Amino acid sequence: MNIKPIGKRVLIEACEAESRTVSGIIIPDTAKEKQQKGKVLAISAEVTKDENNVMKVGDTVLYGKYSGTEINVDGKNYLMINSEDILAII
Amino acid sequence: MNIKPIGKRVLIEACEAESRTVSGIIIPDTAKEKQQKGKVLAISAEVTKDENNVMKVGDTVLYGKYSGTEINVDGKNYLMINSEDILAII
Amino acid sequence: MNIKPIGKRVLIEACEAESRTVSGIIIPDTAKEKQQKGKVLAISAEVTKDENNVMKVGDTVLYGKYSGTEINVDGKNYLMINSEDILAII
Amino acid sequence: MNIKPIGKRVLIEACEAESRTVSGIIIPDTAKEKQQKGKVLAISAEVTKDENNVMKVGDTVLYGKYSGTEINVDGKNYLMINSEDILAII
Amino acid sequence: MNIKPIGKRVLIEACEAESRTVSGIIIPDTAKEKQQKGKVLAISAEVTKDENNVMKVGDTVLYGKYSGTEINVDGKNYLMINSEDILAII
Amino acid sequence: MNIKPIGKRVLIEACEAESRTVSGIIIPDTAKEKQQKGKVLAISAEVTKDENNVMKVGDTVLYGKYSGTEINVDGKNYLMINSEDILAII
Amino acid sequence: MNIKPIGKRVLIEACEAESRTVSGIIIPDTAKEKQQKGKVLAISAEVTKDENNVMKVGDTVLYGKYSGTEINVDGKNYLMINSEDILAII
Repeated sequence: MNIKPIGKRVLIEACEAESRTVSGIIIPDTAKEKQQKGKVLAISAEVTKDENNVMKVGDTVLYGKYSGTEINVDGKNYLMINSEDILAII
Repeated sequence: MNIKPIGKRVLIEACEAESRTVSGIIIPDTAKEKQQKGKVLAISAEVTKDENNVMKVGDTVLYGKYSGTEINVDGKNYLMINSEDILAII
Repeated sequence: MNIKPIGKRVLIEACEAESRTVSGIIIPDTAKEKQQKGKVLAISAEVTKDENNVMKVGDTVLYGKYSGTEINVDGKNYLMINSEDILAII
Repeated sequence: MNIKPIGKRVLIEACEAESRTVSGIIIPDTAKEKQQKGKVLAISAEVTKDENNVMKVGDTVLYGKYSGTEINVDGKNYLMINSEDILAII
Repeated sequence: MNIKPIGKRVLIEACEAESRTVSGIIIPDTAKEKQQKGKVLAISAEVTKDENNVMKVGDTVLYGKYSGTEINVDGKNYLMINSEDILAII
Repeated sequence: MNIKPIGKRVLIEACEAESRTVSGIIIPDTAKEKQQKGKVLAISAEVTKDENNVMKVGDTVLYGKYSGTEINVDGKNYLMINSEDILAII
Repeated sequence: MNIKPIGKRVLIEACEAESRTVSGIIIPDTAKEKQQKGKVLAISAEVTKDENNVMKVGDTVLYGKYSGTEINVDGKNYLMINSEDILAII
């Protein structure tokens, strides 16, 4: 796979939603719906050059559930998301 | 916990709503609804570099009740809020 | 009390609405509703540094009745208002 | 009276609407409603410093009937109007 | 008459709508409604200084029928129109 | 005819809609409605000076059917269209 | 064919939608509808000069199904799409 994001976009692979935290507490459904966790697979040239950017490939990030655009390459789903719509690196 | 806010965001831990002031006066419900108090846990690189920024980690801040985006990490709720939507340091 | 306004905000303490002018003329209700008078308690660092700013702590200012955001600190109400929404110093 | 306009505002005292022109022609009501004539009482520091500004205190200006915000100081009505909403000096 | 346009405005005197072209062809009503012809009487200081401006006093211009603001000075109607809303010099 | 476009406008003379391609294929009505072909008659001074501009007088261009403003000079219809709304030179 | 995109546009020839991936998996209809694949035929002068641009003629790109404007030249359909609306090079 070789997908190069264009503009201010970042390529994200969504993590499976977890129903338990590390310490074993069950996450209620309402909490799970507010956010989504994913892994950064690629960052556009423009974002990479942006001096305020702190993300790098491999980071785990949080983003709003309805952010970005889903794409499908070779039968797999990815997310193209604007770097400004990523909330945090965790 | 290690959450790095992205963009112009600040990571906030909301304080419990108080129903009495320091001097013991009961705060009416209408007043409590207008604002929310929280503690700054982290500030994005971009906000930190902004020469107009005066917030620092540990500050207690006021913000509008419906500002920002709630996130859930390891079973705890935090708030990612745009630095411009924070009203004041108290 | 120590409240530091963030961004372009100014901290205002609203004056009691007067129903008579200095010379004793009764202000009709319609006129009173169009404006609000207040005292500047604090000015954000950003506004202070703005070369076009002419407000200072202690000034009496006029602002639209529905401008700004009310905050409640220690049982007292204040107004956080954007410096651009303040109409005039009187 | 000492009112200092803030931001891009100009302080205007509205002229009485005339129902006749200098040469005695009666102005129809529809024409009177489209515009308003006033006298410039004060100009904000920001407008004064603007190199494109050509207004000065004492000028008679035209502005749209619903432009600006009415203020009431000591029982008298004035208009705080954005300098860009003033149509012309006459 | 001495009217000085403020901001990006140009003072226009509307031409009478013609119902025939120079060559005598009757202009259908639908065509007449789409545009308006006028003469430039004055140009604001700001437009005059704009290096992209090519209009001068005395030019005949075309503009959309609903562009600008009508003003009435001494019983005569004029149009204050934003220079960017003027379509062409003819 | 001497029409000088103002601002970012380009003067276009629309081509007659063709119902057949060069190779004789009939263009279905739906395709014809999506675009319009025209000839560039004049370009404003501002567009001419724009270093990104590649259009010149005489070019055949494509534009959206509802782009621009129709004008009527001497009984003929022309189109004043913003240079950014022109899709392509063909 | 010689079509030069104007402004920030890129000329795209849409690929036929595939119903199977390289490895033979059938793509469900819902996935196909979210994106569209195409080939870059031409890039405007403005996009070419943009230092953040990484697209070149011949690239295969992904874009949202409803992005851009369809044009029809000599009986063939193409897409004029804003470079910022292209999601990724694949």
